[in-house]
Amino acid sequence: MKGGFLRLLDLVEAGHAIDASKNNVGLLKGLHIVISSPDDTLQYGIDESYDLYIPSNGDSVYAHLKAQTVYGALHGLQTFSQLCRFNFITKTIELQRAPWSIADEPRFSYRGLLIDTSRHYLPLPTIKKVIDAMAYTKLNVLHWHIVDTQSFPLEIPSYPKLWNGAYSGAERYTMADAAGIVDYARRRGINILAEIDIPGHALSWGIGYPQLWPSPSCQQPLDVSNEFTFQVIDGILSDFSKVFNFKFVHLGGDEVNGSCWETTPHIKDWLHKHQMNASEAYEYFVLRAQEIALSHGYEIVNWEETFRNFGSKLSPKTVVHNWLDRVGGGLVQKAVAQGLRCIVSNQENWYLDHLDATWTQFHMNEPLTNITNPDHQKLVLGGEVCIWGETIDASDIEQTIWPRAAAAAERMWTPLDQLARHPREVRGRLSRFRCLLNQRGVAAAPLSWLGRDVPAGPGSCYNQLYNYIVQKK
Amino acid sequence: MKGGFLRLLDLVEAGHAIDASKNNVGLLKGLHIVISSPDDTLQYGIDESYDLYIPSNGDSVYAHLKAQTVYGALHGLQTFSQLCRFNFITKTIELQRAPWSIADEPRFSYRGLLIDTSRHYLPLPTIKKVIDAMAYTKLNVLHWHIVDTQSFPLEIPSYPKLWNGAYSGAERYTMADAAGIVDYARRRGINILAEIDIPGHALSWGIGYPQLWPSPSCQQPLDVSNEFTFQVIDGILSDFSKVFNFKFVHLGGDEVNGSCWETTPHIKDWLHKHQMNASEAYEYFVLRAQEIALSHGYEIVNWEETFRNFGSKLSPKTVVHNWLDRVGGGLVQKAVAQGLRCIVSNQENWYLDHLDATWTQFHMNEPLTNITNPDHQKLVLGGEVCIWGETIDASDIEQTIWPRAAAAAERMWTPLDQLARHPREVRGRLSRFRCLLNQRGVAAAPLSWLGRDVPAGPGSCYNQLYNYIVQKK
Repeated sequence: MKGGFLRLLDLVEAGHAIDASKNNVGLLKGLHIVISSPDDTLQYGIDESYDLYIPSNGDSVYAHLKAQTVYGALHGLQTFSQLCRFNFITKTIELQRAPWSIADEPRFSYRGLLIDTSRHYLPLPTIKKVIDAMAYTKLNVLHWHIVDTQSFPLEIPSYPKLWNGAYSGAERYTMADAAGIVDYARRRGINILAEIDIPGHALSWGIGYPQLWPSPSCQQPLDVSNEFTFQVIDGILSDFSKVFNFKFVHLGGDEVNGSCWETTPHIKDWLHKHQMNASEAYEYFVLRAQEIALSHGYEIVNWEETFRNFGSKLSPKTVVHNWLDRVGGGLVQKAVAQGLRCIVSNQENWYLDHLDATWTQFHMNEPLTNITNPDHQKLVLGGEVCIWGETIDASDIEQTIWPRAAAAAERMWTPLDQLARHPREVRGRLSRFRCLLNQRGVAAAPLSWLGRDVPAGPGSCYNQLYNYIVQKK
Repeated sequence: MKGGFLRLLDLVEAGHAIDASKNNVGLLKGLHIVISSPDDTLQYGIDESYDLYIPSNGDSVYAHLKAQTVYGALHGLQTFSQLCRFNFITKTIELQRAPWSIADEPRFSYRGLLIDTSRHYLPLPTIKKVIDAMAYTKLNVLHWHIVDTQSFPLEIPSYPKLWNGAYSGAERYTMADAAGIVDYARRRGINILAEIDIPGHALSWGIGYPQLWPSPSCQQPLDVSNEFTFQVIDGILSDFSKVFNFKFVHLGGDEVNGSCWETTPHIKDWLHKHQMNASEAYEYFVLRAQEIALSHGYEIVNWEETFRNFGSKLSPKTVVHNWLDRVGGGLVQKAVAQGLRCIVSNQENWYLDHLDATWTQFHMNEPLTNITNPDHQKLVLGGEVCIWGETIDASDIEQTIWPRAAAAAERMWTPLDQLARHPREVRGRLSRFRCLLNQRGVAAAPLSWLGRDVPAGPGSCYNQLYNYIVQKK
């Protein structure tokens, strides 16, 4: 909490020097913070609410912040910091338009952002800056898509040759690095959802252990017929459970093409022996991986293809992660009707690497579209914006995420009946928020019709010109 | 110095956790630093040399760093940090290819980068990150083009309405902020060259003091006929001298169009009375401003148009700042032949906002082109790469500066006879340096044929694909 308070001071000052001699003239005496629960465990579903009362300027009294948990209090501090402005004439910090009386809590308990460290390695300082800005927008889950076809950057102590699949000797994370990320995020109220995407999207696993490939010439999905495959998954999830202490682990399961299984002789024989075709083997693989995850105490997130193909077989502890189906298109409705939980990341509106997805699409994308039954609504845990890494590295990640992700964050936090009905009610506020991000050192792009646009000409951040050119994705 | 050493440790670790239990196994015991001069004043022309000796790995002995000044020692620490690599297997820091014996010093004493805070405001954290990365490339002057036609962001205590010309109430720097930037840069061995660009490029001055304009409808250059104009310049330079303690101040002087002077009745009368035309008034203005700067203890930098138009009249304490003339095109030769000093920023090769200026152009641009007389060569103080702000703000400045500026930095540091003769000798090294910048949290772009390019597909930083598309400047 002390760390959170010191960070607040840094944010409010934004580098400007305060005139300390004026500290007691017509200003707040301080901020009283009361936190009810002594438990500072960060877990899915904790109380994130807070009440903030700020008296009028000049009262020489205290502001008050109350919260059930330290994480609710961090959100309250974040709000407090965003009501402060440095006054360049008096050199003091002013609270805008006080008095304020704010009772606040999120609409959705899961408000995520996905990063992808397989298509490009993201250095640790880059990941930390993403986490910093997530806290400014009250997002609370960093979905770390660690591994994919292209590279395996993370150390797995149980199977130490796995990260032979890293791009290079330098583009790696130790398990201690991962623990550092988990701790850094926790201090900002953010959980880490670790993902291994199996059985497809896992070619890089076989660089260190080629027996995980169907054959040297047909390298994915992971060999379903080999017990070693499941031993490795068990080892990874065992190692994960010591560091990634979020309630959920993500097991992927998307875009599985079983042709290598059908054409590789020893797997073809295995399928025949077990009376399975490739689709059935895909189901067998995913369900067995789910069992392993459950045995390590995790609940499971899987991409929507698993539900589409064998939804009735999934563990009741599965969260279905939508990405293909358009918002309100039926997939989420079916999953919650079956009693499964869902996260919404429909790509047409919430994929940040789609530069032509506008900030208005990010803002207007409603996870509860066409879901009216209150019991079903409760099963939609929230949503997640995704920045897949094919064209994203340390040089362009910030300006591709921000400010569009902030538009989605507002959708996920704000009560439905208080949300703007039209983007024109949002533009000014989001534009100013982009300037706030810039002042805090985040390279958020101008609020344009394109992601990652650049300024078209001189001007104030608060009245920014932007280009209409189409940049290559 | 202690700060420099702690920063070094942060850089070397790049966020990775060191295994402390291994700290004494086959590693250096430490680094001995000997600095000859107790004077830690940072000024133009100080000794920046250093000698670094690193024994072979495993010797359990000390490395040695010797320097005349603390700023030479900081360069030595920077070199040391760039020889270190985190070993992901042993979790220790390794020194690459030791032993090393390095005797190093810069070829040019002025190695600059220009930023422009008038066309877009740059937040303080953004400026600090630019300074951080300058230190990584051993650049030693940040040329701060503070004010221009579009906005006047800096507080001037003597004339407090000047920053009414800021874009907004927030897009401002207090003089305490400026002092903070000077100090932050000094601790990294970097001087700040402050600029007021007069008499053109100064429209924003008149927002607070309209009497500085020729008339409300013809707003620049500054009114040459009004004594108040020179009082304001004197006030600014007086305020500057308390904070900007570099030997030089930049007085601009480029792109002056005197038509407002010739058409505004009271100035037309004044010209007539003083028997001047607009060109002569331009000379009068610049020379009078030079006198004011000299009276405050500054030597002067002026853009090349001043030399082109009345070079023989300039103070001998003038440094001519080239930008229009192509490298080796004659301007610099003429100025040094006249005994004036020069800085080279020829736009075709060293303007970073020109996205089509390639890294090879940045690297191959030789300030001494066609200057063979050793006495004349000494008058070329060095060079400066410039990132003008029309299309540059907090969202795109880092990836537009880096890595191209690093290519110019190598040109300015390295002895001429040791410089690469062909870009192919540079590509690998510069490419790896870009990855180092990324690891340190700097958003340096892929080494492409364009500035600010983005990755075209997945891959290692060390083998990065890039686009060939033309992005809008």
